[in-house]
Amino acid sequence: MKQTILDRVFSVAPLDSVVMEQARLRQLQLTKPAGSLGRLEDVAIQMAGITRQSLPEIKQKAVIIMAADHGVAREGVSAYPSDVTAQMVLNFLHGGAAINVLARSVGSKVIVVDVGVATDLSHLDLVPCKVAPGTANFMLEQAMTETQMLEAIKVGMDVFDEQLKQGVDLIATGDMGIGNTTASSAITSVLLQTPAALVTGRGTGINDEQLEHKIQVIEKAIERNVPNPKDPLDVLMKVGGLEIAGLVGVIIAAASRRVPVVVDGFISGAAALIAVELNPTVDAYLFAGHVSVERGHRLILEKLGLFPLLDLQLRLGEGTGAVLAMSIIEAALSTHREMATFAEAGVSTREGE
Amino acid sequence: MKQTILDRVFSVAPLDSVVMEQARLRQLQLTKPAGSLGRLEDVAIQMAGITRQSLPEIKQKAVIIMAADHGVAREGVSAYPSDVTAQMVLNFLHGGAAINVLARSVGSKVIVVDVGVATDLSHLDLVPCKVAPGTANFMLEQAMTETQMLEAIKVGMDVFDEQLKQGVDLIATGDMGIGNTTASSAITSVLLQTPAALVTGRGTGINDEQLEHKIQVIEKAIERNVPNPKDPLDVLMKVGGLEIAGLVGVIIAAASRRVPVVVDGFISGAAALIAVELNPTVDAYLFAGHVSVERGHRLILEKLGLFPLLDLQLRLGEGTGAVLAMSIIEAALSTHREMATFAEAGVSTREGE
Repeated sequence: MKQTILDRVFSVAPLDSVVMEQARLRQLQLTKPAGSLGRLEDVAIQMAGITRQSLPEIKQKAVIIMAADHGVAREGVSAYPSDVTAQMVLNFLHGGAAINVLARSVGSKVIVVDVGVATDLSHLDLVPCKVAPGTANFMLEQAMTETQMLEAIKVGMDVFDEQLKQGVDLIATGDMGIGNTTASSAITSVLLQTPAALVTGRGTGINDEQLEHKIQVIEKAIERNVPNPKDPLDVLMKVGGLEIAGLVGVIIAAASRRVPVVVDGFISGAAALIAVELNPTVDAYLFAGHVSVERGHRLILEKLGLFPLLDLQLRLGEGTGAVLAMSIIEAALSTHREMATFAEAGVSTREGE
Repeated sequence: MKQTILDRVFSVAPLDSVVMEQARLRQLQLTKPAGSLGRLEDVAIQMAGITRQSLPEIKQKAVIIMAADHGVAREGVSAYPSDVTAQMVLNFLHGGAAINVLARSVGSKVIVVDVGVATDLSHLDLVPCKVAPGTANFMLEQAMTETQMLEAIKVGMDVFDEQLKQGVDLIATGDMGIGNTTASSAITSVLLQTPAALVTGRGTGINDEQLEHKIQVIEKAIERNVPNPKDPLDVLMKVGGLEIAGLVGVIIAAASRRVPVVVDGFISGAAALIAVELNPTVDAYLFAGHVSVERGHRLILEKLGLFPLLDLQLRLGEGTGAVLAMSIIEAALSTHREMATFAEAGVSTREGE
């Protein structure tokens, strides 16, 4: 299975620079000062390079939420009990969570995947792919076996492939898992080779004392498991999470099929970091939906060279920031496709040109 | 006419703190960690206070674009000739500009008002309220007479009132006018008592030399006209523009009828600054759609205490950033209205609560 996954990782191809140049030239002809639509222009050009269409258009959107539990939650690193993972998965399935509301507002499907929730769950709309009932407590032992990690990555790839088959052409990543900011902080600390204290935040809202404890738990976990910063899969296996592995699979699968991915906040960002460390070419297929309040997230975005489309001080996860940003991407594509050119509108160009 | 306008300025009432508290309590009951939707929560609570509804909903949106020419454009402060003002107004009316595309994408009407375009214009969908064929060149004399300024403010109020009658409950401000970043920089320099060099940017895209010249033009204009920083209407009359006056009218009229206003970039920001200097209570009715690349805009937002909903490096005007931000405001209201509460969803609250 490892070879199948790595084959897919290395099948990701660069963006199409010819189509990007066509898109860049079109932007210069639209009735606005060159560059005045800022990031919207960049988005349109990147989308052209991803999709190989000079006038790209989104037909069907989906947010894929990977849900799993974390053994490390037993160390008291979250403001909420582990039960909340399953309860929130049901809330997603019943349409009552923030991600459901925001997905409706942008016209995106919500795909909920059980890749490792501790509770038994059954629902018609749930994608049941439980690899294990949560990770082990990585303060005491490694989070997953290699097989579990690879299976979780494969789940992400399969779920993406099914969505692709159904016609989805823009993916947002989402997550649910009490304890998963702890895992994401551990991954970020190792891969960015930055002290845990600088990449660890308050997650769902812990106090100063709990934050200090959370940092110590992460430090101990790294000390005990010795994840290798040069080997992203080793880091994922030892201090990651099943939902993070699932998201790594989604991101790689999408990039390998030239489908753009809107990455949500800190947990999705940790998955994106792993995917890009596996193959830097993946980076070009990513959009950062937003920058989270979680302090490690900004460092991930800097490392990946991604600018956040939104900065609304969100720290909810679920894919909320990514889904909200989908409307910005669609707006960028609409201006690119639908605006009149200077010639069409009879508008004068710059003085002396 | 001045008294009628001032009466309306001082009729703006504070937000409803009781309804805001109801909205705040509801936010705490929704299935998410408290505060985790960041600015979206703030937006929902502010909207509740503005509209006096604990579950506010937007029914009809409009962007009002005020268009006018500037005598100071003859000093070579823009990369584009003055003719472009009229050409772009026609582009708006034919639906080919960025604002048209973005307004369609969020479902907003586009109202185009000729409050002072130099060219004669006639179109079924144009709101014809020309006060004068552009301002005077304020490097040589004051931009407007007091009567012209008051008439332009009144145009903005009347246009808003007509939209209110038609059921519009969310307004975005937009502008078109070659030369209007020069006027906005002059207004900002005077009202923030900050040197012109610190509030003046490249507008449509001038080079270093032209920027230096633009700053000198603004400095000379302020020196010659001596606008009184304690009297916002004096500043508007002497170094402002007809479209900026029109937007002051729109903003005041909306606030006086408890209708929220999404303020676009630098030109709209200068109008908002004048409106708030006239009556600080107006501030609570404003949302900053985005922060522009124009350097003076960030200083205006800081002065007004407004956080930008978007930061996409836009510098186009027309209302583009404001209209794009309307979808963020609607998303904020959707989560506020539609999310399940902890009790409804059977989700556990924080440990120990």
